[in-house]
Amino acid sequence: MAEPLRVDFERLQADIEALAAIGRHADHGLYRMAFSEGDIAARAWLAERIRAAGLDLHVDGAANIHARLGWDGERPSVMTGSHIDTVPGAGHLDGALGVLVGLECLRRVRELGLETRYPLELVAFTDEEGRFGGMYGSQAIAGRLTPETIYNARDLDGVTLIDAMAAHGLDAMDGLRARRAPESLHAFVELHIEQGPVLDRRGIPIGVVDGIAGLFKWDVQLIGTANHAGTAPMDLRKDAFGGLAELGGEIPRILEEDGSPRSVATIGRAQLVPGAANVVPGRAEFSLEARDTDPRVLDQLAQAFRKALSAIARRRDLMFEFEVLSQIAPVKTDPGIVERIEGVARAFGVEPLPMPSGAAHDTQMMAGLTRAGMIFVPSKDGRSHSPAEWTPWEQIETGANVMLNTLYELAS
Amino acid sequence: MAEPLRVDFERLQADIEALAAIGRHADHGLYRMAFSEGDIAARAWLAERIRAAGLDLHVDGAANIHARLGWDGERPSVMTGSHIDTVPGAGHLDGALGVLVGLECLRRVRELGLETRYPLELVAFTDEEGRFGGMYGSQAIAGRLTPETIYNARDLDGVTLIDAMAAHGLDAMDGLRARRAPESLHAFVELHIEQGPVLDRRGIPIGVVDGIAGLFKWDVQLIGTANHAGTAPMDLRKDAFGGLAELGGEIPRILEEDGSPRSVATIGRAQLVPGAANVVPGRAEFSLEARDTDPRVLDQLAQAFRKALSAIARRRDLMFEFEVLSQIAPVKTDPGIVERIEGVARAFGVEPLPMPSGAAHDTQMMAGLTRAGMIFVPSKDGRSHSPAEWTPWEQIETGANVMLNTLYELAS
Repeated sequence: MAEPLRVDFERLQADIEALAAIGRHADHGLYRMAFSEGDIAARAWLAERIRAAGLDLHVDGAANIHARLGWDGERPSVMTGSHIDTVPGAGHLDGALGVLVGLECLRRVRELGLETRYPLELVAFTDEEGRFGGMYGSQAIAGRLTPETIYNARDLDGVTLIDAMAAHGLDAMDGLRARRAPESLHAFVELHIEQGPVLDRRGIPIGVVDGIAGLFKWDVQLIGTANHAGTAPMDLRKDAFGGLAELGGEIPRILEEDGSPRSVATIGRAQLVPGAANVVPGRAEFSLEARDTDPRVLDQLAQAFRKALSAIARRRDLMFEFEVLSQIAPVKTDPGIVERIEGVARAFGVEPLPMPSGAAHDTQMMAGLTRAGMIFVPSKDGRSHSPAEWTPWEQIETGANVMLNTLYELAS
Repeated sequence: MAEPLRVDFERLQADIEALAAIGRHADHGLYRMAFSEGDIAARAWLAERIRAAGLDLHVDGAANIHARLGWDGERPSVMTGSHIDTVPGAGHLDGALGVLVGLECLRRVRELGLETRYPLELVAFTDEEGRFGGMYGSQAIAGRLTPETIYNARDLDGVTLIDAMAAHGLDAMDGLRARRAPESLHAFVELHIEQGPVLDRRGIPIGVVDGIAGLFKWDVQLIGTANHAGTAPMDLRKDAFGGLAELGGEIPRILEEDGSPRSVATIGRAQLVPGAANVVPGRAEFSLEARDTDPRVLDQLAQAFRKALSAIARRRDLMFEFEVLSQIAPVKTDPGIVERIEGVARAFGVEPLPMPSGAAHDTQMMAGLTRAGMIFVPSKDGRSHSPAEWTPWEQIETGANVMLNTLYELAS
């Protein structure tokens, strides 16, 4: 590679700071949930920035905001993007960084007057964070929406997606028309903060995502018998908490025996019933979630957890039930794009870390449509979905430069 | 022992059935919380039954209802009793059985014209079950009440004991005057259902309580770091649930190493914070309760649990805090009374089971005042505080006969 391209970092920095001020609530972080006041203001700001950059502005049926450079409706585009909506009380980088880096990349290619074989396209996806379920915009582009899912989508207060969009003159059903033909895309690359501690802990500025973890999430019930904690001797108890504790203790063994080094499993929610200090719990209700990037590993883990639960229940004379709350298949990123990102990173003197994405991203949807890749930059202490979200500016600059050269090479 | 005395079981049975109809709510069991409508009706009924039996009726300053036979205000009495108040949705035997068996014993001694050296006294204690904190009546007799505790006693709806008693023309502060001098009592014996499964499981109709378990109850917090369940690798987590599960797994070891065969320990309440399936719990808040009849064993258990918590926290890089919610010292029953009950039971062809009481009872208070004993009859499947509470009639009859002869012997 010749001398690599570089973004105008001061301009990018100014954009990041400007967007970080939109939807901010004093010390509580950002509130830009999809179609909230903050989101609408951010959308207007972004459209204006796209126009000011001399890029073509396009808003599709799912209210995804596109910026296009060299678009002719015929050649497939090299697309980058992420989202500008946030969870409530968010930080300023989750999603926004990927959109603003993409904007800077298109802007830079345009101002340098670089010719590309394929048009460049930026997209800010609608409702990635899930006020109405999540990834509405990328699902729309990937053709995963149905009239039913659109019709049923509502937020925690019961507001429907249809009403929320109608309030801004939009028809949520138009999301069905945002579908893109695979032929209209040459590649998709997303830059995102890691939202985990690995890069920060290891002091590596660039992660290259080789797979997005799939997961299964169960609602489990262990059912024993509630008893007076004073009058029920230990050997006559059917203590549901005992079963839960035993399963908790088995997680490391199960991951070691049936998982990969990337596997994680979490019990994040638990309730004992009746839930009084002086009553032996008759029921333990809890969530069990496991993730891995390999579908076979996920299957093995599901089987191992089922066997462990069944053995624990048998041994302790409990019953158990579980309901699958969700099951999401892992997604592989494109090895060619992974290699290209690695090559670009090395040109900047960085040996990037191949790693999984444990969180879900729009890339998961886009990978079903075109070859896709993802660049991670570090999250300080792994913090995310919090005003404490932070990535040092020099790492953002490195990430932006890696993205610029990756997009330019993919489009060349 | 000559031919043992026998109660008029049909009469006792009729009393049990009559009292079981007072405060009953269709299928939901009994509602005779202290000074509720049901409790007041039951008090009136009991007073009438005492009068009808030709016994002296006495109501003390704590609204405890006494029946007396041979009372002269000089000789110490042999007292029996329990309570007729209930928890909400109660069964018909918890407390009521001990009062009605006591009534039948006094009635039987009177109608047989038996002479005793000491007067016999029955007491129905006020608010054993704790609408206003529990054991108001027996604490009053044992001299454990203070003006502060009376003044501060209130139910879950905020109704004060003072107001609840005033509504019936009673002054709760008069409870201070119900205190009995130790010299006024020769012995106290309570009959109660076991409220646990041991006698029923082993098919033994009589248990003789040799000690009432003390307990400690802690509120424990294990504090780690909340993390995204997808992006935090297992080895970088500080998972508070992991610590709770490990402690749960240690309970059997701790009881084996530092407890007695009677020790029990229970985690009955647990909450994970923030409590979402996709977030590694940053905090686990739970109750830990342990009981034993030996105060040294309780001390050892407390120390062992502290050590275990501290080691778990160190090993997992968590912090821990605990607050002592309650600490109640164990109580020994009188070995002479235990032996006497055993002797009487054997005269009925029953080999009784010496056992602890894991639940608290009025006897706990009375044992501080005079030598005390307790007779248990089986609870079907250990069920109590439920309309499903049940003891077969023939076991009630055996229990009543054992009580009658025990009281008669103690009074002779």
